[in-house]
Amino acid sequence: MNFTGRDILSTEDLSREDILQILKVSARMEKLVRAKRIAPLLADRLVAVIFLEPSTRTRLSFETAIQRLGARPVTVADPKSSSAAKGESLTDTARTVEGYVDCIVIRQPETGGARRVADAVAVPVINGGDGSGQHPTQALLDLYTIVKERGSLEGLTVAMVGDLKYGRTVHSLSYALAPFSPKYVYCSPTELAMPEAVTRDVRARGIPVEETTDIRAALARADIVYMTRIQRERFEDPAQYERLKGSYILNRKLVEQGKAGLTVMHPLPRVDEIAEEVDALPGAAYFRQAHNGVFLRMALLAMVLGKA
Amino acid sequence: MNFTGRDILSTEDLSREDILQILKVSARMEKLVRAKRIAPLLADRLVAVIFLEPSTRTRLSFETAIQRLGARPVTVADPKSSSAAKGESLTDTARTVEGYVDCIVIRQPETGGARRVADAVAVPVINGGDGSGQHPTQALLDLYTIVKERGSLEGLTVAMVGDLKYGRTVHSLSYALAPFSPKYVYCSPTELAMPEAVTRDVRARGIPVEETTDIRAALARADIVYMTRIQRERFEDPAQYERLKGSYILNRKLVEQGKAGLTVMHPLPRVDEIAEEVDALPGAAYFRQAHNGVFLRMALLAMVLGKA
Amino acid sequence: MNFTGRDILSTEDLSREDILQILKVSARMEKLVRAKRIAPLLADRLVAVIFLEPSTRTRLSFETAIQRLGARPVTVADPKSSSAAKGESLTDTARTVEGYVDCIVIRQPETGGARRVADAVAVPVINGGDGSGQHPTQALLDLYTIVKERGSLEGLTVAMVGDLKYGRTVHSLSYALAPFSPKYVYCSPTELAMPEAVTRDVRARGIPVEETTDIRAALARADIVYMTRIQRERFEDPAQYERLKGSYILNRKLVEQGKAGLTVMHPLPRVDEIAEEVDALPGAAYFRQAHNGVFLRMALLAMVLGKA
Repeated sequence: MNFTGRDILSTEDLSREDILQILKVSARMEKLVRAKRIAPLLADRLVAVIFLEPSTRTRLSFETAIQRLGARPVTVADPKSSSAAKGESLTDTARTVEGYVDCIVIRQPETGGARRVADAVAVPVINGGDGSGQHPTQALLDLYTIVKERGSLEGLTVAMVGDLKYGRTVHSLSYALAPFSPKYVYCSPTELAMPEAVTRDVRARGIPVEETTDIRAALARADIVYMTRIQRERFEDPAQYERLKGSYILNRKLVEQGKAGLTVMHPLPRVDEIAEEVDALPGAAYFRQAHNGVFLRMALLAMVLGKA
Repeated sequence: MNFTGRDILSTEDLSREDILQILKVSARMEKLVRAKRIAPLLADRLVAVIFLEPSTRTRLSFETAIQRLGARPVTVADPKSSSAAKGESLTDTARTVEGYVDCIVIRQPETGGARRVADAVAVPVINGGDGSGQHPTQALLDLYTIVKERGSLEGLTVAMVGDLKYGRTVHSLSYALAPFSPKYVYCSPTELAMPEAVTRDVRARGIPVEETTDIRAALARADIVYMTRIQRERFEDPAQYERLKGSYILNRKLVEQGKAGLTVMHPLPRVDEIAEEVDALPGAAYFRQAHNGVFLRMALLAMVLGKA
Repeated sequence: MNFTGRDILSTEDLSREDILQILKVSARMEKLVRAKRIAPLLADRLVAVIFLEPSTRTRLSFETAIQRLGARPVTVADPKSSSAAKGESLTDTARTVEGYVDCIVIRQPETGGARRVADAVAVPVINGGDGSGQHPTQALLDLYTIVKERGSLEGLTVAMVGDLKYGRTVHSLSYALAPFSPKYVYCSPTELAMPEAVTRDVRARGIPVEETTDIRAALARADIVYMTRIQRERFEDPAQYERLKGSYILNRKLVEQGKAGLTVMHPLPRVDEIAEEVDALPGAAYFRQAHNGVFLRMALLAMVLGKA
């Protein structure tokens, strides 16, 4: 399980042991940062942060991870100013940048794009999200958050609520948590149900799956609720959207009716799918979840650069 | 007067003693930078620089201050690529970012926005300008410039010229200098006169205020002239703008007709309200004023992070 | 030949000895980076990277050079967010920034703009490209690449192919290589021939120049082929573009018909003027060429800051 030189492209490439090792290193990174703010394991390294699709949260999280490791980021944050805008191929951009840095973090809109970049260059590549495809560091920070909030990944009942059709994070989480004996409750409007392919894959691995349109039913049994946003533009009929959206908003009353100690997660940014009154509850883990991303990304960077 | 952990949101929060201490630390920072370029007081700290409104000058000044302190900036420079563009609230953005960094510098367009951010997070917040509201680091660097150019803040006659109605800097300066026994000459077209509220407040503190439309009269008595730009879009009648704008342009002849040793200040960027021929005069302080911002911002960062 | 404090504005300012010294220092920088990744010669310096025109490749290359020298970049990457957008003159922007940093790298669209900046400020200025004018670091990295690929700059036959009329890099290369006894073959459609002024200057220095529209003829004699892109928008008649463009695409067969050991260069980004099948050939030097830019820019930064 040596990660040196490996690419981090998809959680599907990672074994149960890989995942547990990554989470262990993340915990070590968190301890180092809390003790000394900077853990200069990569003091002589440069990391390219190439974001050809906007995502401030993920970009800042990676740059923070790089800086807290003592390394130095070289950043493209604005897709319009990039060479891609002059017609250059993604792999040509990557082959240029690999001569500048020791590792490439890339976010771009084509599914499979990160893998093509990894195939084209010699330095390790970390996928920061490729279109509707993989976003492995989000899935891993979700797991890291679950360990921290619940003490373990094993045997949890997770309700996923909202837009399960287009919500990339709930697909990834469904797969990433699968090796740890979970139960899933998928709760969404019929129009935005979890894709058949995901449900089938998950059931084939022996995981009990319940589907419902009723958030109360979902919360009744859940240890964790993972909220996602329902976007107006997913509905052909705007009236349908207006009728439904209120049914998938998590408020304080709903949390208090759920199982004691319910953990509330969300990939952020939220708009109004979690009422602000929930923020003060002890189980409201979504900002801690965002903060955990830094430690997880520090772990991955240190591991692929052979310095964990 | 311990600044550790304090937010810097408005000059109105600062006492006379606070201001003098900040200026003293700024002078120490300037000395350190002139001697050794880097004063690594914050070598293990990260500072978020979140600019949701464009302002290259202020952003670069803060990033320079962060770098000269040995700290590491994590930057959002492009409002369009931010999470705010996805509908996230300002406080949610701040609560995410506070988990990444040790201090937040924020510029954004809502009056009072910086205070809402400060209320939402535990790390210290420095207001980098909030819409038409406060821009405290500009007011403080103006004071630091006055001390350096004139030797003291006490008893100076300051002419403020141009757009006094919408010019945020002249409002702030009017309040910030008030504890130091100044006299003010407000010189503007009638349409762009200093707001009644400011004039009343200032007079209530016993400060003599003269109002005029004649720049020659203003300069006759001034130790310092603080120029601001008159913008075409402030006038309903474009002909009115064309008729007036030439009357508020500072040239060499006007400076030479003023009091000997006149200090010329401007928050920059200028367009044509100060003729380039003025740049070479010894009293032309506006570029030095911009440079002073780095030392002032270093002082604030070091102070709120407990390392001054 | 002391470079301390010098501006790097144009290759025409550089003597043969200057160029050879720069290439020597570049080689030393490359050795240091390959041995230890970071060569912290400028550990206490700040460098402004002001890009008022988009160019990710050049910007990242400069930022990488700055970081590998242990220095700290302060960057403007987005022209629209700059003070220039508020009507500020280029020299006012520069006079502000010179108070922040120890060196300014600037790219902007006006021919001669970098020189005006250098005249306005006291810190050394490096031209990162000014409109259709000079781009000296590109020309120098081309020379550094030639030395590395061919062992020497002396006595080489260089075919320049494609858009020789608007292609800034081939003009610069024609001048920069001139002191080293080259032969040139200029190969382009008639509409995009090398400007008369360049051809005349080069011939006046005793350099043999051949002009052709036939890429096969050009390759037959060349040690090096320098490809450039033919842009559709250069042609009044789109049909003319369609008819011609295929004639100036370098593929594997053409390379194999050329002289043994042919070196293929390109300033990048390429679109389709070099077939991807060429990338794997040993003489395909264009990605190495891009990577060389980092060492060359490290050399210039260290030299003008007196630390080479």
